[in-house]
Amino acid sequence: MTDVQSTNEPGVLPVTDDEWIALVDELCLRYRNWGRWGADDQRGTLNFITPEVLRYAATMIKAGRVVSCGLPFDSNGPQSGGFGGRTNPVHSMLQDGGDIALGAQDHLAILRYTDDAVAMPLQCATQWDALAHIFYRGQMYNGHGLEHVTSTGATVNGIEKIADGVVGRGILLDIPRHRGVDWLEPGDAIDDVELSACAEAQAVEVRSGDIVLVRTGQIAQVRSAGSWGQYDGGPAPGLGHRAAHWLAAHEIAAMATDTWGTEVLPNDTPGVFQPLHLIMLVNAGLTIGEIFDLEGLSVACQEEGRYEFFFTAPPLPITGAVGSPINPLAIF
Amino acid sequence: MTDVQSTNEPGVLPVTDDEWIALVDELCLRYRNWGRWGADDQRGTLNFITPEVLRYAATMIKAGRVVSCGLPFDSNGPQSGGFGGRTNPVHSMLQDGGDIALGAQDHLAILRYTDDAVAMPLQCATQWDALAHIFYRGQMYNGHGLEHVTSTGATVNGIEKIADGVVGRGILLDIPRHRGVDWLEPGDAIDDVELSACAEAQAVEVRSGDIVLVRTGQIAQVRSAGSWGQYDGGPAPGLGHRAAHWLAAHEIAAMATDTWGTEVLPNDTPGVFQPLHLIMLVNAGLTIGEIFDLEGLSVACQEEGRYEFFFTAPPLPITGAVGSPINPLAIF
Amino acid sequence: MTDVQSTNEPGVLPVTDDEWIALVDELCLRYRNWGRWGADDQRGTLNFITPEVLRYAATMIKAGRVVSCGLPFDSNGPQSGGFGGRTNPVHSMLQDGGDIALGAQDHLAILRYTDDAVAMPLQCATQWDALAHIFYRGQMYNGHGLEHVTSTGATVNGIEKIADGVVGRGILLDIPRHRGVDWLEPGDAIDDVELSACAEAQAVEVRSGDIVLVRTGQIAQVRSAGSWGQYDGGPAPGLGHRAAHWLAAHEIAAMATDTWGTEVLPNDTPGVFQPLHLIMLVNAGLTIGEIFDLEGLSVACQEEGRYEFFFTAPPLPITGAVGSPINPLAIF
Amino acid sequence: MTDVQSTNEPGVLPVTDDEWIALVDELCLRYRNWGRWGADDQRGTLNFITPEVLRYAATMIKAGRVVSCGLPFDSNGPQSGGFGGRTNPVHSMLQDGGDIALGAQDHLAILRYTDDAVAMPLQCATQWDALAHIFYRGQMYNGHGLEHVTSTGATVNGIEKIADGVVGRGILLDIPRHRGVDWLEPGDAIDDVELSACAEAQAVEVRSGDIVLVRTGQIAQVRSAGSWGQYDGGPAPGLGHRAAHWLAAHEIAAMATDTWGTEVLPNDTPGVFQPLHLIMLVNAGLTIGEIFDLEGLSVACQEEGRYEFFFTAPPLPITGAVGSPINPLAIF
Repeated sequence: MTDVQSTNEPGVLPVTDDEWIALVDELCLRYRNWGRWGADDQRGTLNFITPEVLRYAATMIKAGRVVSCGLPFDSNGPQSGGFGGRTNPVHSMLQDGGDIALGAQDHLAILRYTDDAVAMPLQCATQWDALAHIFYRGQMYNGHGLEHVTSTGATVNGIEKIADGVVGRGILLDIPRHRGVDWLEPGDAIDDVELSACAEAQAVEVRSGDIVLVRTGQIAQVRSAGSWGQYDGGPAPGLGHRAAHWLAAHEIAAMATDTWGTEVLPNDTPGVFQPLHLIMLVNAGLTIGEIFDLEGLSVACQEEGRYEFFFTAPPLPITGAVGSPINPLAIF
Repeated sequence: MTDVQSTNEPGVLPVTDDEWIALVDELCLRYRNWGRWGADDQRGTLNFITPEVLRYAATMIKAGRVVSCGLPFDSNGPQSGGFGGRTNPVHSMLQDGGDIALGAQDHLAILRYTDDAVAMPLQCATQWDALAHIFYRGQMYNGHGLEHVTSTGATVNGIEKIADGVVGRGILLDIPRHRGVDWLEPGDAIDDVELSACAEAQAVEVRSGDIVLVRTGQIAQVRSAGSWGQYDGGPAPGLGHRAAHWLAAHEIAAMATDTWGTEVLPNDTPGVFQPLHLIMLVNAGLTIGEIFDLEGLSVACQEEGRYEFFFTAPPLPITGAVGSPINPLAIF
Repeated sequence: MTDVQSTNEPGVLPVTDDEWIALVDELCLRYRNWGRWGADDQRGTLNFITPEVLRYAATMIKAGRVVSCGLPFDSNGPQSGGFGGRTNPVHSMLQDGGDIALGAQDHLAILRYTDDAVAMPLQCATQWDALAHIFYRGQMYNGHGLEHVTSTGATVNGIEKIADGVVGRGILLDIPRHRGVDWLEPGDAIDDVELSACAEAQAVEVRSGDIVLVRTGQIAQVRSAGSWGQYDGGPAPGLGHRAAHWLAAHEIAAMATDTWGTEVLPNDTPGVFQPLHLIMLVNAGLTIGEIFDLEGLSVACQEEGRYEFFFTAPPLPITGAVGSPINPLAIF
Repeated sequence: MTDVQSTNEPGVLPVTDDEWIALVDELCLRYRNWGRWGADDQRGTLNFITPEVLRYAATMIKAGRVVSCGLPFDSNGPQSGGFGGRTNPVHSMLQDGGDIALGAQDHLAILRYTDDAVAMPLQCATQWDALAHIFYRGQMYNGHGLEHVTSTGATVNGIEKIADGVVGRGILLDIPRHRGVDWLEPGDAIDDVELSACAEAQAVEVRSGDIVLVRTGQIAQVRSAGSWGQYDGGPAPGLGHRAAHWLAAHEIAAMATDTWGTEVLPNDTPGVFQPLHLIMLVNAGLTIGEIFDLEGLSVACQEEGRYEFFFTAPPLPITGAVGSPINPLAIF
């Protein structure tokens, strides 16, 4: 990899909102992959995970150790209801031990059973964004319009279109550890240069088709504080817009962080909300994951002495959904 | 493996319901693993998946091909509402293209987003049973009582206790293909002898810690019929009680079928409903999966010329849940 | 009242779809009440219920007898899921006797409690349509556009706007009894002439501000059949489009039937679906109720010897909702 | 009415928790109505509303003015999730203006529709407790045991059993106005003497079969504070246990307040949580309402110069439910 960032930005930084919008527009077009895998493609950069990539990923499994990066799905989750009606999951029992105690299943001879249900926003905790989750100037990945996402769901780019993913080689870029801090502070942006430097320091070679997990430590911070605070939509550390250069240059297949929205908040592009979602999710077709719990993985990487692993996080194939709760597994 | 079944059953078959109950009771005690992995264990036979097993499983990835065994989660699913209040999933949009078209997000400059939610019984489609799902004579795996599953969920043996599973080596036993039929008929039982014969015919060596998928073809049958019919709880092909010998002898870590309830229905143990759930899930601690779509996997196994693969199906770690929807992936 | 219908229709009936559309358009404009009660009005014909009307309604209470017209809200309701994602209610317990039996509330000394929740489409059973429920050529009552009903609900004409209704004098027009049959058959239309004749035969004087319940007997029919059949959206008896003349001429405040959609199905206006909803709900501002159980009321009216009563059916003031489940009460 | 309280209490107040429990036990038995209306009765004190009572209630309608006492059902409601999994309502759209804008209903010619759903705990806002809501020493009203309320709902005393209620004469006892304050403070108890004094000051004669609404002003207080604070389960003004004498002596049919739990919190019976629920709901069979918004009614009573009115608050007949959201109407 060459020094990708040196030639990617204008010599003079944008000043006005309009100039920032123009820059993001330029990056959207620069990294656009529409048509790259065909007009009908609905998987985007997951196409970088070729059979060869997957075979190589399998060689990551050496220790036989599994680490989950999924938060518990329950009423103690990060949602405060402040953002767009997202609540924490509501779990209810259809049958439980009490019913059994009261004789409700006495017709079943010696077997008794319990049963349950859940109601939850699909992005309430650890999750993938579907490619139908974001629109840029009226279009989503591969050029589809608004009419493809109505109250009955998404007819293109829904999460079920990547039902046979997301699996491949994963790498963790542990930014707080690289910086020597416990966690990044809200507003701290991570750029392409730092991503490269962190990878180099961790002795991990970034390869086409990699699934990249970027740790900011924000979950460590909220745990230390004993409260989610403004985790769901408030100020946060995260990727800056320049990370787009790095993600595109390395042909990253999927990317996730331990924050609510992946990107530094407030965004480092005045006038543009969540620019990486526009540049990378909509235009490059990058599947983005959020609210990953990377604390256990950080420890495991240190203990294993490596920041690469086999990674699997299949979405639930909910037809027409624009996201999915997941339980990502890293396997060493 | 020796001929496990020959010495496992009484010379004279049970006749009365009480005799069948006595046989199941005997098998429950015979294959009970309570305490085997400690009094606090909540993972059961998943403990058979040692680091070594996992390393071996990784060697299954040779072709770099992924096959999903998950049914779509939507209103066309198998639930008719007939069994215990289980319905198909209800998917709803929190924000969609229509809201965008009407200007509801015009404050967001050039980005627009969609968002959604789902409400569903946890066992409405492809799923794992948690070890808290079944009680045998008032106890679940490792001896816990009814008071551990109330309206607020399971305090032991909940699905979140296996959050870092289920991953390992998978094998498919394709019974209809072995028998030379399109699918098994309702009431057709699969026993230990047939499981062994099928494995042998498929040239697959069954190993300790394997995750076994047994195909009955019932999903092919309902697709052919154009209707789920009585799939959710009605007569079905499936494993007979004698399969317990095979599952226990081979130290199977987890097991799943393409039917609603794993076991042949009506059960082959008059007087006892779902005996394998009692013997294997409660007493042996076996994680059981149901409503897997094994049609694509059947084709893939044929094409790849092998019935073994890397397998991953992480449950959603819903705190206190007694089951979880999943999207199982087989990786060749 | 004069013979309203004789001059209301063209001498020659429409033939083509376009001609029917033109007729409905004409009736929409003819009976339009937009602006009648002010540009900000969101109550429509409920404004006909003046204090004087309400005082008169009170005189209907003579016997002290109450009859509910609400169907049970449960999983045995009329919804088959066939229409637009409408399902029957899902009721779940947050705390129940079983939890108590298992000691979950032992911290509460001598009190124990149960608690529950429901999830349901607002029009799954007995309900009012809000004025925000229907659009005619892009506009709802009083001229509001599509942008007022997004995924976050209705900002105008929502059900909460009639939170202090619906209460007044009710009358039952028992058409099957008038015709001398058990129930009307699917496709049987009720027109303005029959409504007048039925009222006259029942010796009930129709007054401005009345709430009119029209019985078709379809609920008797489905009960007799032992199955809801195609009740939710299939062929049904009901009001024909000519009922608009009668409803408008009598200044009816609200109207309800015992069918899924109020109007005869298939509609008697080829090319136009649910014309009365367009003419009366959107343009006249008439609150329409559906899936009322009028069987008990029919018996009560006969027994009491009168078809008029005090009527109350307050909607739940769900903010921004376009309908509400109700339990209508007739008080003799 | 005589001075009911003077002979009802022991000369010496209880001191220990056990003595308080003994007092509550004594009152439970003293006011127990089990069997009074038959062993099968499931309506309790609503039986006090005889046809004659209802006829008298109708005479309250003189002005033709309707006042709703229902809170809006939405995400801004009083639930913080702190009590037993109760959340605010979640309203979702099945079809909305955006879908229409995008052409999703273009097959419907000139009609378009919107549709929606709600998920909510039944006691999340203005509601009735069903008689199945509370158990006293293992029994609910009329002596039924725990086995009658399981995960599938209540088989006796469910809210649907009072589907033809709650309607009759209502009276408001406006305690803050009587005391000359804006609202009562948390911990302020209202006893039988004060209820009588307030009624007398308001010149309202309390009659058998009355539905009594008691205003504490707590909703005015939380509105003034701009936050619900600890409204849902925290310290609150309300009825003290001595109110039982008054409620029983006057043969009150139903009772409601503007607080979360009707009773003063912390309760004035150390060692017993919610004693009136035990004495009056379980033993007397009194239907209790909570979270009524009595602010508008307070103003209306002042303006009308009377504290009596016709009252109607029919519960939704949700089968087996232990409570119901309602929209109570007072009609002057």
